[in-house]
Amino acid sequence: MNIDEQLEFLKKGTVDFIREEDLKAKLLESEKTGRPLRVKLGADPTAPDIHLGHTVVIRKLKAFQDLGHTAIFLIGSFTGMIGDPSGKSATRPPLTAEEVAANAETYKKQIFKLLDPEKTEIRFNSEWMGGFGADDFVRLCSHVTVKQILERDDFDRRLAEEKPIALHELLYPLVQGYDSVALEADVELGGTDQKFNLLVGRSLQREYSQEPQVVVTTPLLEGTDGVEKMSKSLGNYIGIDEPPDEIFGKVMSISDELMWKYYELLTDIAPGDLEKLKSSCESGGKNPRDAKISLAKSIISDYYPRSDADAAEQNFISQFSEGNIPDEIEEASFASGERKIADFLVEAGLVGSKGEAKRLIKQGGVKIDGEKVEDAAVDVSITSGTDLVLQVGKRSFLRVTGA
Amino acid sequence: MNIDEQLEFLKKGTVDFIREEDLKAKLLESEKTGRPLRVKLGADPTAPDIHLGHTVVIRKLKAFQDLGHTAIFLIGSFTGMIGDPSGKSATRPPLTAEEVAANAETYKKQIFKLLDPEKTEIRFNSEWMGGFGADDFVRLCSHVTVKQILERDDFDRRLAEEKPIALHELLYPLVQGYDSVALEADVELGGTDQKFNLLVGRSLQREYSQEPQVVVTTPLLEGTDGVEKMSKSLGNYIGIDEPPDEIFGKVMSISDELMWKYYELLTDIAPGDLEKLKSSCESGGKNPRDAKISLAKSIISDYYPRSDADAAEQNFISQFSEGNIPDEIEEASFASGERKIADFLVEAGLVGSKGEAKRLIKQGGVKIDGEKVEDAAVDVSITSGTDLVLQVGKRSFLRVTGA
Repeated sequence: MNIDEQLEFLKKGTVDFIREEDLKAKLLESEKTGRPLRVKLGADPTAPDIHLGHTVVIRKLKAFQDLGHTAIFLIGSFTGMIGDPSGKSATRPPLTAEEVAANAETYKKQIFKLLDPEKTEIRFNSEWMGGFGADDFVRLCSHVTVKQILERDDFDRRLAEEKPIALHELLYPLVQGYDSVALEADVELGGTDQKFNLLVGRSLQREYSQEPQVVVTTPLLEGTDGVEKMSKSLGNYIGIDEPPDEIFGKVMSISDELMWKYYELLTDIAPGDLEKLKSSCESGGKNPRDAKISLAKSIISDYYPRSDADAAEQNFISQFSEGNIPDEIEEASFASGERKIADFLVEAGLVGSKGEAKRLIKQGGVKIDGEKVEDAAVDVSITSGTDLVLQVGKRSFLRVTGA
Repeated sequence: MNIDEQLEFLKKGTVDFIREEDLKAKLLESEKTGRPLRVKLGADPTAPDIHLGHTVVIRKLKAFQDLGHTAIFLIGSFTGMIGDPSGKSATRPPLTAEEVAANAETYKKQIFKLLDPEKTEIRFNSEWMGGFGADDFVRLCSHVTVKQILERDDFDRRLAEEKPIALHELLYPLVQGYDSVALEADVELGGTDQKFNLLVGRSLQREYSQEPQVVVTTPLLEGTDGVEKMSKSLGNYIGIDEPPDEIFGKVMSISDELMWKYYELLTDIAPGDLEKLKSSCESGGKNPRDAKISLAKSIISDYYPRSDADAAEQNFISQFSEGNIPDEIEEASFASGERKIADFLVEAGLVGSKGEAKRLIKQGGVKIDGEKVEDAAVDVSITSGTDLVLQVGKRSFLRVTGA
């Protein structure tokens, strides 16, 4: 790829790119000197479970790495070990150094499915913040004005709504920005919600007489529902540690419209090829279902051998397209006796609550041996000889036997 | 003194007293347990030249010390050694540790004229801020909200006027407040301009589970002109290192109205006695000039032996009341030749500029051998036989001889 092709490749699926001409200059300089660019991606040390929503920006890091640059995966251990010192957020208790180290290992296990460990620096900001004195902190803060920091969207909104902002919250963007100084980052990546913090890094680097980093943001990815941001707590996520069959099924469940966004953000397909594929589907030349199968296999192949992606496709086809119960399903045995089907679904762990069970039954989403259950009050009778297959939704199966 | 008398004594001449009932409780507790209260006064390490304006609050510290409590004179070495890190204020260059130590010695030499060295702790906030990590700083900042800090008068005004506030400026009140935590202060004293910072200390102590300090502020003292705040740069100050005659003369030059304020803020006179003295002067029973002489002697006695105050009174009376030239005056010899009187006053170092010389002459403030000079263009002729006395204002004399 020449520099312009590299730029197009790196720009694909991004939102902010500040500024393209700076990156072009850096790429040219790197080509001339042979010095790889230092490309930073910061991560919160508290939540190392990665789903496809996170991989959008990790894949962008990989894109730089694939072009020969240095990927820096920065774990925000300094802030993580402080937590929320105001004690107002129960979800941000301080982590111990051991917890941070354990989370880092979990991160590594996951990101190295995408990134080349040999060309990736894993760094912790406590490396430099740990030795930072109160005087260094005061000096750091002298490089920005109160107004600059309060212009950040969420601060601005909270001030306008008269919601309290603890003073330490203003310091975190500074720390994140200083990380770029400490790492001498050429590029920093992040979600669009990180744009402000990334720009602070750019501005601090100038203050510390460094060439300012290029800021690249990627969009938030909608979850499988196509509406909300992908998130574990909303249940609309696809985790990269999930089994290939599960990933395959979840990808097949998304809308055609969302499929194009996933193609753009979760594969390396060139923008031109993506356009061709899209118009081919729209003109009826290609079945969108086949395009979705290709997408699912491409995503699985990022995390598993290609053969697993092929097997997932085969399983999916035999299971759903042909309406069969899959070959291998989990089995559990239960004590004899009678219970309402809604209660039993909870007991078997197939749903979270009786309410959910009732809703699913009403929607026709619960089957016993392939037959829809019509009423939540139906009795299930378990005896020593029971052997039935319970199905919830499209992909949850359980073979039920009597104890 | 019983507790109520102590309270009255401590409250004399103060502006804020937050809160009186808290101090009463602390005084009672101290009396009961025998534990002296810890009374803090902070000082900027950059400007150790003390004049009477500074002594208003130092005398309040002495009042607590006279009641048996511990005076803590805190030197803000941490902030002094940082200076203005934004580099925007030329007047706040960072001090070296040696400069801070030298300034501290100068402070001690001066404050120990008022305070008892045996019962005074001289402390430096670098003692605790030096060991403060970035994490400690973040935790400290979590105890206040942005709104609380921005409510400080000058921040509020600068924001409204869209003048930049560097982020580190918000940190300084926190450091000052944390000093009270580190020192476990029971009371903090300051000028009225320090009220906000003192209240931050009160609020931080609560956050750190300490009993909040009592905040006591004293008014700014007008200089000898009776208009502007006493300040070295305005030339309206009385330095505590000045000779007794100089202090005496300067005090005698103030207005009767200002005299009462000086009495209140610069002497230990009880409020009742002060009222009596005042009405006695107003009714004509006492000459205000005598009250002013007593004030001058009381002030001098704070810094010199009582006999020096008596001598200053005698010198003043013989010199001014009787219109005589003092017995001993400085002498300097000059090259022969003629010059305009205005130029000569500059040459002789008796005035700062030709403009000042002209103004003084116009006001009738310049005399040669006791005769008023009427015109700035008058020639002074110096020959080898010249011996004349030049007088500027009431108290500057110079014997001029030819070289």
